[in-house]
Amino acid sequence: MIRHTVVFSLKHAHGSLQEKAFMRDAKLALHDIPGVKKFEQLRQVSKKNDFEFGFSMEFADQAAYEGYNRHPRHIAFVKDRWEREVEKFLEIDYQPI
Amino acid sequence: MIRHTVVFSLKHAHGSLQEKAFMRDAKLALHDIPGVKKFEQLRQVSKKNDFEFGFSMEFADQAAYEGYNRHPRHIAFVKDRWEREVEKFLEIDYQPI
Repeated sequence: MIRHTVVFSLKHAHGSLQEKAFMRDAKLALHDIPGVKKFEQLRQVSKKNDFEFGFSMEFADQAAYEGYNRHPRHIAFVKDRWEREVEKFLEIDYQPI
Repeated sequence: MIRHTVVFSLKHAHGSLQEKAFMRDAKLALHDIPGVKKFEQLRQVSKKNDFEFGFSMEFADQAAYEGYNRHPRHIAFVKDRWEREVEKFLEIDYQPI
């Protein structure tokens, strides 16, 4: 199992319609791409960093993860929305020990 | 629900006995502190950052999280092991949206 996470902040104002639209459209684009399990949208609440949100999802194996990465809906979402609306981000991927 | 995560790297060599001992002792010290649920030890596998490991745990609410933070076994582990053996870390906490 690979758990793919990304913690990020948006360029949009807190609570704005643009923020809500980004989260809604991200879920629509990504959550049912084949191989995606346990898709979660999260609010980052620690005061020890200044990221605002997170996504988390799990894949059965590396092949499923790569299938997600090259899926047309993922590629389009990254190009059309992520690269334009995300201020900063950090990807962190985990496997159980 | 609050998911508390920390991604980190150790000062120890990869695969060393010291590394194994740190992970073993962390689990022993932390996993059954009251309020801790879904305690996980993880290997960080993304090439887009250079952290090596992660811990993840969940708390029912802020009170349970604070109980963990001030538990003597947590405080002792941070002082005696974490501060001495961890090279760098980032805490990220999430709540479901």
